[in-house]
Amino acid sequence: MSGAQRQVRGEKVVEKVLEATLEELAITGYAALSIEDVAQRAGVAKTTVYRRWPTKREVVHAAMLRVADDFILGSNTGSIRSDLIAMLKGFRDFMSTPRGASLVRTLVVDNGCSELSKLTYDIRMDKEAMPLAVVARAIKRGELPRGTDPKLLLDTLFASVQNSVLFLEDVCDDQKIAQLVDLVLVGAENAGGRRLRRAR
Amino acid sequence: MSGAQRQVRGEKVVEKVLEATLEELAITGYAALSIEDVAQRAGVAKTTVYRRWPTKREVVHAAMLRVADDFILGSNTGSIRSDLIAMLKGFRDFMSTPRGASLVRTLVVDNGCSELSKLTYDIRMDKEAMPLAVVARAIKRGELPRGTDPKLLLDTLFASVQNSVLFLEDVCDDQKIAQLVDLVLVGAENAGGRRLRRAR
Repeated sequence: MSGAQRQVRGEKVVEKVLEATLEELAITGYAALSIEDVAQRAGVAKTTVYRRWPTKREVVHAAMLRVADDFILGSNTGSIRSDLIAMLKGFRDFMSTPRGASLVRTLVVDNGCSELSKLTYDIRMDKEAMPLAVVARAIKRGELPRGTDPKLLLDTLFASVQNSVLFLEDVCDDQKIAQLVDLVLVGAENAGGRRLRRAR
Repeated sequence: MSGAQRQVRGEKVVEKVLEATLEELAITGYAALSIEDVAQRAGVAKTTVYRRWPTKREVVHAAMLRVADDFILGSNTGSIRSDLIAMLKGFRDFMSTPRGASLVRTLVVDNGCSELSKLTYDIRMDKEAMPLAVVARAIKRGELPRGTDPKLLLDTLFASVQNSVLFLEDVCDDQKIAQLVDLVLVGAENAGGRRLRRAR
């Protein structure tokens, strides 16, 4: 076998093992995941996995980073409403794939796991950066009041879509996303009004 | 041992086993839970568990129902804002107890599990009934527009608090709950306005 062939085979093994890791994560979660099950699902020897990733933590890290890299949130349509709708649709579509569901489930469910906490924190910060910039631009353009709390706005929207898709298994179609954005966005746009009204 | 003594001992065993089940659920989730671990944690023989609850599903059902019964959501202050704040605080406080966290985690994380799905569905419907009635009363009083979607409003609020406490492990203090309610409630109050504005 030539060096190039070996490399191709090596890449295929990496791909198979990381896919198997994500599938196992989706089923069992991090705590119950075993390298043995991953190897079996990937159709490779246990030693093949251990050679590249000496610990469970390492193979899970590699698998999560690979999916996270594929998923980019962001939008710049010039309108905060369309930007939010576009990002939430992207998030819903991502979560509706097995790989996306696996990543999000691990991020939320195994969040308390100290072995993963640094990684899940880093991925979350990385994924939040673009949506935060989208809201910051809307404030700058005057679409949202200066006092808007970007994190509260985004956490509320994303938590709702996440809960709907992942846990309630509700319908989360385009219409529902638009209704959700309108509900929360109107709240943000009129936040000053309520403060005044309540101060009376 | 008299009959009365036996009954007291029996009640204690039930209590211990159901508590142990909740603790195990919180750690491992439903799929990985074993009667063996439950018995060990409760300090009773495996056969003691099997005698009362022949399957894992049965002991988990019993444990979940016991916690669910302890948790009542509802408020009737005469103002939708105070009602929502009171219910969300109650939900946050409940989720911050080990038993509450265990129940909510099982409801959301093991939701896809068919053995539990009927039970989780029933518990969710039961817990949703009071908050839905609270919003219906606010619409009737004219505090919220007729077109308000009670489920969208409530799902958004509860998803946000749930995500914050259970997964992000963010601070979810009274101030944050009030900000969240103001954001979403102002959106609901002004929903008609946006529709008009967008129609122009």
